[in-house]
Order: sequence, then C-alpha cells, then structure tokens
Amino acid sequence: MINIALLGLGRIGVMHGKNLMRNKGFKLKYVYDINKKLTLKISKVLKSTPIDNPAIAFKDKKINAVFIASTTSTHIKLILEGVRHKKAIFCEKPLDLNINKINECKKKIKKSNPKIQLGFNRRYDPGHNNLKKELLRGKIGKLEKIIITSRDPAPPSIKYLKESGGIFKDMMIHDFDLARFYLGNDEPEKLIATGSNISDSRFNKIKDHELASCIIRSKKGVQCIITNSRHCSFGYDQRVELFGSKGMIISENKRKNEISFYSNSSTSSKSTLMHFFIERYKDAYKNQLYDFAKFVKKNVKPLSEFEEGRRALIMANAAKKSINSKKFEKLKF
Amino acid sequence: MINIALLGLGRIGVMHGKNLMRNKGFKLKYVYDINKKLTLKISKVLKSTPIDNPAIAFKDKKINAVFIASTTSTHIKLILEGVRHKKAIFCEKPLDLNINKINECKKKIKKSNPKIQLGFNRRYDPGHNNLKKELLRGKIGKLEKIIITSRDPAPPSIKYLKESGGIFKDMMIHDFDLARFYLGNDEPEKLIATGSNISDSRFNKIKDHELASCIIRSKKGVQCIITNSRHCSFGYDQRVELFGSKGMIISENKRKNEISFYSNSSTSSKSTLMHFFIERYKDAYKNQLYDFAKFVKKNVKPLSEFEEGRRALIMANAAKKSINSKKFEKLKF
Amino acid sequence: MINIALLGLGRIGVMHGKNLMRNKGFKLKYVYDINKKLTLKISKVLKSTPIDNPAIAFKDKKINAVFIASTTSTHIKLILEGVRHKKAIFCEKPLDLNINKINECKKKIKKSNPKIQLGFNRRYDPGHNNLKKELLRGKIGKLEKIIITSRDPAPPSIKYLKESGGIFKDMMIHDFDLARFYLGNDEPEKLIATGSNISDSRFNKIKDHELASCIIRSKKGVQCIITNSRHCSFGYDQRVELFGSKGMIISENKRKNEISFYSNSSTSSKSTLMHFFIERYKDAYKNQLYDFAKFVKKNVKPLSEFEEGRRALIMANAAKKSINSKKFEKLKF
Amino acid sequence: MINIALLGLGRIGVMHGKNLMRNKGFKLKYVYDINKKLTLKISKVLKSTPIDNPAIAFKDKKINAVFIASTTSTHIKLILEGVRHKKAIFCEKPLDLNINKINECKKKIKKSNPKIQLGFNRRYDPGHNNLKKELLRGKIGKLEKIIITSRDPAPPSIKYLKESGGIFKDMMIHDFDLARFYLGNDEPEKLIATGSNISDSRFNKIKDHELASCIIRSKKGVQCIITNSRHCSFGYDQRVELFGSKGMIISENKRKNEISFYSNSSTSSKSTLMHFFIERYKDAYKNQLYDFAKFVKKNVKPLSEFEEGRRALIMANAAKKSINSKKFEKLKF
Repeated sequence: MINIALLGLGRIGVMHGKNLMRNKGFKLKYVYDINKKLTLKISKVLKSTPIDNPAIAFKDKKINAVFIASTTSTHIKLILEGVRHKKAIFCEKPLDLNINKINECKKKIKKSNPKIQLGFNRRYDPGHNNLKKELLRGKIGKLEKIIITSRDPAPPSIKYLKESGGIFKDMMIHDFDLARFYLGNDEPEKLIATGSNISDSRFNKIKDHELASCIIRSKKGVQCIITNSRHCSFGYDQRVELFGSKGMIISENKRKNEISFYSNSSTSSKSTLMHFFIERYKDAYKNQLYDFAKFVKKNVKPLSEFEEGRRALIMANAAKKSINSKKFEKLKF
Repeated sequence: MINIALLGLGRIGVMHGKNLMRNKGFKLKYVYDINKKLTLKISKVLKSTPIDNPAIAFKDKKINAVFIASTTSTHIKLILEGVRHKKAIFCEKPLDLNINKINECKKKIKKSNPKIQLGFNRRYDPGHNNLKKELLRGKIGKLEKIIITSRDPAPPSIKYLKESGGIFKDMMIHDFDLARFYLGNDEPEKLIATGSNISDSRFNKIKDHELASCIIRSKKGVQCIITNSRHCSFGYDQRVELFGSKGMIISENKRKNEISFYSNSSTSSKSTLMHFFIERYKDAYKNQLYDFAKFVKKNVKPLSEFEEGRRALIMANAAKKSINSKKFEKLKF
Repeated sequence: MINIALLGLGRIGVMHGKNLMRNKGFKLKYVYDINKKLTLKISKVLKSTPIDNPAIAFKDKKINAVFIASTTSTHIKLILEGVRHKKAIFCEKPLDLNINKINECKKKIKKSNPKIQLGFNRRYDPGHNNLKKELLRGKIGKLEKIIITSRDPAPPSIKYLKESGGIFKDMMIHDFDLARFYLGNDEPEKLIATGSNISDSRFNKIKDHELASCIIRSKKGVQCIITNSRHCSFGYDQRVELFGSKGMIISENKRKNEISFYSNSSTSSKSTLMHFFIERYKDAYKNQLYDFAKFVKKNVKPLSEFEEGRRALIMANAAKKSINSKKFEKLKF
Repeated sequence: MINIALLGLGRIGVMHGKNLMRNKGFKLKYVYDINKKLTLKISKVLKSTPIDNPAIAFKDKKINAVFIASTTSTHIKLILEGVRHKKAIFCEKPLDLNINKINECKKKIKKSNPKIQLGFNRRYDPGHNNLKKELLRGKIGKLEKIIITSRDPAPPSIKYLKESGGIFKDMMIHDFDLARFYLGNDEPEKLIATGSNISDSRFNKIKDHELASCIIRSKKGVQCIITNSRHCSFGYDQRVELFGSKGMIISENKRKNEISFYSNSSTSSKSTLMHFFIERYKDAYKNQLYDFAKFVKKNVKPLSEFEEGRRALIMANAAKKSINSKKFEKLKF
C-alpha cells in the first residue's frame, strides 16, 4: 500500500483523488489545496486528512508519494521539495511553462535519481496505447507517418487562455508527447508549425491561435502531422493514425453510445463524441495510476517521466518559434 | 457472338436491352413488345430490328437465344415456344404465379433438356455472391443462420399490387431463392410466415401485407430468417448476414456516396441507400449476362435455372398457406 | 440511504455487491450465501456483515431492501419472505422456471402491493434504453419491426444447461422482455419458435437447442424477430434494430476498443466484441440500481417489475410449446 | 454532337476513348498515337478513324474538339496548335513540367480566349465533389482545415519516376489542385513540404521522395494538410476531410465490395480499397466529359481550366523549393 498525499484540489485534482481512493494500491492520506475551505470540503469527499501546508505531507515519514495537481507554476517547487524528502512524485503536465526552470530543476535533482512520473495520460489510453503495442509487434511494418488529430469541444475562458502559455504549450504539448511515444528511440529532429484564427476573434487579441498544424520529422524521416483546434462542434475529436510499410492502424474516436439512426435524409448516424478529457480518457487516468504504483513499489519505469515533460516543452517552444521564423526548427533535447 | 431477341420492353426490359448492347458476347438483333409504338421507339435506342410478333425471332435460325422480360403471364408460353425452337432462354422472374402451369411446363420441356436461365439477379450481386464463395471456402465454418433483410423504398401502385400475387410471390420470392442459394444441397424443409400492415391501409383492402417475416428451416437445421417491408424511408435496404460456427459474414447495404458528416447533433452520418433495384443491382444485372453467355456457348451451368424459379414459387405458396394455417408448412419440391 | 442485504454471493451476486457498495444511495449491511465460507470471504470484500440466515436481514427493522441474487429456485420463497417483512425487493431474473409457482406468488403478494424490481438489465443498457426513448419521441414514426440478435460467446457447462430450463427460459427470456419493453402497451399476441443444433452434439443429448429463432406478433401487427445462439466466435453479439414507418434505429455492439486495422488483406478491422454480460452490460447493472433507489425512496416505478418476470416466462413457455406444435401459440398473460 | 479527336492512346488515353464512345454528347472521329501500330489497333476498339498526324484532326473543320492524352512534353505544343485551329481542348494533367513554358503559352493564347479544360479528375469524383457542394451550402460553417490523404498502392517503375518530375509535380499536384478547389476565392498564400524515404532505397538514388507531407496556408488562414505516399498496402487511399466552424465532412475511401467479416480475431473487417485511379475515379472520368460537353456547346465554365493546371504547378514548384529552403514559400500565381 502506498500512502499518498494529493496536492491541488481543482477539478482534475478531485478526479485523480477519486481514482486514488478506488485504487487498491494507494491509501490517500492527505489532501491539500491553497483554498482552505475547499481542502476541508474535498477531504470529506475523499475520506482523507485535510492539511493546510504541503510540508506536513513531505515531512511525514509514512508518506511514500505525492500527487501534484496544483497550478502549473507550483509544479517545479513541489517537485524539488518532494525529491528533497525522497518521495515518489506524480506530477500533472506541464512541468512548467519555462524551459530554463525545468532545466535547472533537472540538474538539481539528477543525483537523487528520483521517481517522477508525468501525467501524459494519452499514453495510457487503451486505444492509443494499443497502437504502440501493435507497432512494436511489427503489425504495420516500418513506421512511416503519424497523424494526430486533437480538437477540443470548445475553447476555455479567455482568462485561462491568457495564462496557458498558448496553444503549443497548453494543448499541442500532449500531441508532441504522443508523437515521441510512437517514435520511441527515433527522436524528433525538427518541426514547423502554423497557427491561425478564423471563427473566434478573441484569439487574435491575445496573440494565440484557435487552429494549429504542425509537421515533425524524425531522425529516420518519419513524418508526423498534428492538427489542433480549440473548438469542435461534434465533441472531443481525438484520433491517431499510424501508417507503415505494411499497414495502417487507427485509434478512433469514442462516442457517447453505440446507436445508429437511419432516416430519409441520412443513414448510420452516430452519436456525438464523448465530450471532453474526463470522459474520453477516463480509463487512461486510471491506468496511469497502476503504472505509478509499479514505479513506486517495484521501480518499473512508467511510460512517462520527468524527461518526457521536458522534451515536450522543448517541442512546444520550437513550434512557437517556427511561427515567426516560418521555417523548420531543429530540436535539441 | 450470340444473336438474341428481347421480348418485353418495359422499364426492366430496356435495362436488360442496354446491358445486352454493351456486352460483347451478345448481338441484340430483334426487340419486341406488345405495344408497337414502344417497340419502334425502343428499337432505335437499342439499335436493333423491331418485330411485331415474337414468332419472327423464334423462326429465325440465326437467333440463338431469347430474353424474356414481358409480363409474367406470358413467360411460360414464350418459354415453351423458345424450347420448341431450340433457343436458349433467359427468363425474368417469376416463371409464373401458378405452380401447376410451371409443373406442366417442366414436364413438357424435360426431354428437350433446354437451356433456361432464370433472372434471380441477387445471386450475381458482387456482395451477396461473395458471401457464397466465402461460405464454400469455409470462412465461417458450418452455416447455422441466414438473415436476409429486404425492404423496398416505397410500395408499387395499387394496380401493380393487385396483379402481383402478393408479397410472398412478388417480393419475398427473391429472398426464398437467396436462402436456397446459400443452403446449397441442404434444401429448405419447412417454413412459416407472418404478414401485417401498420402504416398503409391500402394493403388491408387488397388482402396483402406491407410487412412480412418468415422463418425457414433447412434439413440440417439451418435457420433462415427473412424480413420484408414494402416501404423503407432510407432507401432500398438489402442485407444478408450468414452466421456460422466460426464466424459471420455480412453483405452490407450500398449507399449513394461515401460521404460522412459530423455536426453538433450526430457523427459519421452517411448518405441514404441506393434507391432501388436498378441502381443497387446494376452489377448483378450485368454479371448474369456473362453467365448466360457461358451457358449458351459452353454449356456451363448458370447460378439460376428454371428449377430455381419453380422452387422459389413453391416456397412462396407455402408461406402464403402458413398465414392461414399459422403453422410451419412442409416444403415438397 | 437505503440499508440493503444481499442474498446470494455467486459471480453475479458479487458484481451486484460491488455496485451497491459504490452507489451512494445504498448502504450494504448484510451479505448472505448458503456457503458460509464464501459469505465470510465476500463480507470482507464488500465491507459488510456476514449472516448465516437470511431471516436476520428480514427481521432487522433497519433493513429497507433485499437484493436477491441466489439460485433461481429460491427466488419465490425469498420474495414471499421479503414481502411479509415489508422489504423492498430487487430480484435477479428469472423469477422461477415454473409459471404456476409465480402465479401463486402473485396472488399471495397482491394485497401487500409490494415493491419488487426485476433484474432485466437490458432495459437499462444505455444503447437499448435510448432506442426506447427515441421511439417514444417519434423518431422512427410507427414501430413496425423489432429485430433482436443475442448470441453468447460460448455455451455454459452441461451441468448449468441441464438446470437452466432450456434456451427459451434461460436465454431468450431476456429478449422476450426486451420485445415487450419496446412494444409498450401493444402487448405480444402470439409467437412461434424453432430450435436446432448444428455444431455441438451435447445439446441433442439434453434435448435443448444451441440455436433458436422466434417470431412474435403484437396485437397491432408489429413483427418481432429474435435470433439466439449459444456460441459466437467474435464475442457477445447483442444488437437491437427497430424499424418504423419513418426510420430505423439500431443499438449496435460494443467492442473492446476503438482500434481499426488496415492491411493487404482487409481494411477497417475492428476488435472483437466485449466478451460477455458483465463487461457488456456494466453500465446497465449500475443504472438499474439508480432506478431501484428511486423506486424504494420515491415510489417511482422502475422499468421492470415482478409482472415483467411473469410475462417473459409465459412467452418462454409458449416458445417451448411451439417447438412441438409447430404453430403460432397465443399468449395469455 | 461534338466531333472529337483523341491524341495519345496509352492506358489512360484508351480509357478516355471508351468514355467518349459511350458518351452521347461526343462522336469520336479520329484517334492518333505516335505509335502507328497502336493507332491502328485502338482505332478498331474505339470505332474511329486512325490518323498518322494530329494535323489532320486540327485541319478538319468538322472537328470541334481535341482530347490530349499524349506524353506530358507534347501537351503545350498540341494546345497551341489546337488554339490556333480554334478547337475546344481537353488536356490531361499536367500541362507541362516547366512553368516557363506554361506561362509563355498562357500569353500566346490569351487573346484567343480559348476553351481549355484540364483533367483534374478528382474535382469530379462524386464524393470529393459533393464536399464542395456541402461546403457552399454552409453545412460545416466557415472552412478552417482541409486534410487530404493520397496514397498510391505501389510506386511506378523507376523509369517512370525519373521522368515524372518528382512526387510534387507528379502526384501531389492533384492534391494541390483539390486544395484550391475547396478554398475557392481564398487562394493558397504559402506552403511548406517535407519528403523522406524509409522503405524503398530507390527513391534516394533518384533524389525523389517516397513519402511527402505539406502544409498550405490560405490568405484567410485556412490550414490545408496533404499527406502522400507512393505505396499503400491496403489499396489506393484517397480521403478528404473538411473541418469547419460548424461541422466536418469527409469523403471516405471506396472499397472493392460491401462485405464485412467477423471472426475470433476481428470484427467488421472490410475489403481492401479499390486498387487504383481507373477504378477509384471511374465516375469522375465520366463526369468530367459531361462538363466538357457543356463547356464546348454552351460555354458553361468547367470545374478545371488551363489556369488550374498552371497554379497547381506553381504550388508543386514551391513545395520542391521548400524542401531545400526548409521554410514556408510564398505563392505567386
């Protein structure tokens, strides 16, 4: 049993808390949020002890692990604290919006050889994950193209967007990581992105993009295409297509139900897609906890670690840079 | 090259005429319809000689074959005539609505051992036909269930319906034959049908059914289910499902195009189905001519002969009888 | 909060127990099984008190409801006991294999006007249930045909089969109930079934059927077709098709994942179906508990009550009878 | 009736010839190929007069139109000749591999205001064409993304490849034109491409690419992604996805048949895709002739003219240039 403390009790923090509660490998001991009232309220829901300072959890010798789901800007500080107290750490993505801070952190923690798992949930989605397995089994021969479609159902608030770091650091970062997941040892070598805004003028004001596309090229010449949109009328569009020398394999969208309707105007009409990440990646969120438990107890490497967070941000930075340079940017990890 | 005469120039006759024109194995010499004006007009379209009496074709030694697409009631007479003149015969379904007439005809022509192909086009549909091939290859193991869905887009005129012989002889007869096609040597043993009418009261007046269902049981115990409707809002619904000990294979519907549409109310909406038999079974109508040419020239047995027409009618009669008896009717072929 | 006792701790009983544990509307107080060791073991899993006699639960005033998941033969006895002690009852299907016992029970409990919900889970499947809603909304116009396909992945043990009451009472009973669900006030009027066995000779020995088909006709003339198989190579085949005057709506199968594979031999290949009822109807099992909670606390009628169990068995009996009579059997409820 | 001469009798020329024969709007008078024997042979198949010099056709006053299907390098010369003789012209793509030659030609023919239709067949594919119609109807709101997947079943011979002008001029040129088709007045502004080769080393030797990807950006910010491959194990992969502010519409692949197969290893497996362009774009090749007939007789503008050929080549040149510059190349039409 792993005694764990949950830091950060926003919507996603609570979701993780519920998953920790139901997972037999964990005992959720402490919960903390900067908002004290919220901490008290959620502590009841999650049947755990509310604390008003994360230090309590870090200093408690019985605590084996901390789960960081607080605001992005606090991640690095909490990671350093966790490493200092020799806790295993699960940290939500992104590590930080500033690559320098991440690089410094990397240096500082290197000697401790800490266990830090990063919350790139999509690697754990049954569909997306299966693609990787089939790829390794040689089902499609040599990998040649990766095509990732990722569209959110609706843009977040303008307030959120302003602090998000922009579409590449906030949204496409998932897809950068997913590309690396499939590429394996054949790391991305260069990339170019473009962004635009057609339907929602708010994005112009904050110098962000509602729509973005990106081509990544790996060392071996695999071409990876990412297409993002901050809105999608039919739900949360999440598809991955791997094309290879011997076949193709697609992780298709998930729908609300399996009904199809036939009328005098159309046939085989299906329901809209699962609305957003909490529904769509429900299983993924659970699965990454099983991996974390194995990491903590048996030191089995999880699918996503600190370095995955760092490299995905390097890619996001390169994408942003390419918007101005209008050319392929080389990636240095 | 087979010199052929086309008898009957209604909508389906003209369609066959065009296919004969384009098929390199045939030379369409004569066309005939009881309507002289029509014969003249169509003879130009089909670039052939109009005749005002089928006897001209029968007596012409250069004519190898006749294609009978006239009214059902004339089929048997024309077949007898054709056999007498040693012509190969292609006859549209059904042979006749009266089984006695068919049985007498069978006796009369037996000695001549004539070549008579029957127009059960569905056996030649690329999808339905492939199912048979896969079945013979053992792809689904032992055949256990046949499920045939056949729904017309809209009922024909009341005038047509009155003379049609009813839903079993006019419509389900295709499905009876299709069931026999898949059963092969394992002939149908008994069947029971039910008919009803929910949306269109005209069917009550003429004592016919708008909707019908049937269960056929083969000698080996294969269960065949047929479901018919005289209307279908989304087009011409034509599906066959074969279920076996090792798998299932389905001949799916054909659509007008391959477009799918996604909106805030549905996803993956496809076009309605191909409207009716002329579009849906376009390839089948062509394919049966290739088979007929081989039959005439090389005496290779076609997929459907006189006997198929006779047996399908016996099944239709049994279905009609079961409506009153409310019990399984044995089939005697 | 409803205090509940769970009677019967077999595989399905434990599944219900876990759902009760997680459902905030219920407090699982007691668990009981005829096997004492099992009772003890499961009581720990389900964090509840083990009892060695159901009477303890019945006599406990604080217990509001009992959940009967024991062997079929004990259902009626436990229902009578429950009614006597004024408990709300959830009973797994079937009520009993003997219609007389059920009818007697009905008489005895009538005056008490008890709350008895029956475990016809399929009415609660998101897909199947949605079909009913769309039907009521008029989405397909007048209902004309119901086509239910239900195939188990593999036959149960011969021991189970011998005690099961046969394919109609054990398996098709679900489909009879589902047909009634969609028919609503338009009750089934008559039915005919056929059964056979092609691949597994064990079924002949026990005079049961591996394959069965049935046509049911409602008072208004709706034709309902059921097709069952005790085996299915590609998983648990569970489909419902409703055809109406204005459209068609299908509740399609659920698969293990959303991957599709393309190779030089096939395209768009999907995973096999969810294996069996526990996975396939996972949501349905949860949903029926929400309905039961509303029934107990607010007296809102659930989708399936005692009478549904009784009528489904009457249909199963008629189906069995029709096997010998070879004719449509009238249904008297 | 339009009297037409067909110049060039290779595989695609013969296909066009057969379509001309069957199209009632045309009378195929002359056929010509540089290979005299071939000309004689094909003239019989196409029931037309063989000529040993295209000048015969150009000088024949009764000839209204010429159909140019000869080698690319002869296109411009024949167009000029045709314009000089005031013939309507249908020219297969590409116009030429050299943009200067095309620009000169443009100047020379400008005053004559000639009728020149270009063979960008995909604009006439029922699926792809319908997408344009739905777009114009506003079905997906504002167009935001165009995603075109185009993969050939197998690479052509190395000899063909060497003379082809490379993947951008020979293959992606179709997709460039298709992007322009959907963009309408909102012309492409800049583009960047990348090419690589993973499985077939021959492409390295000839400095061509087996795989290519491209991002095009329109003036309004529409992002168009093209993904090409010279091989595809499952057939001729031809898909177009249009994403807009209110929905998405996809022109899906066409398969060999509509069969789906279920086994213990997969479900809903479909046939491989139609093999290549002659099958896949069969209807498109016919449809463009109807448009050409209207162009010739009623001066109704066809979907694709000389200028489409010129602009697509400008895009192909820019794509090739971007391979070296590694940056977005501006498009000047």
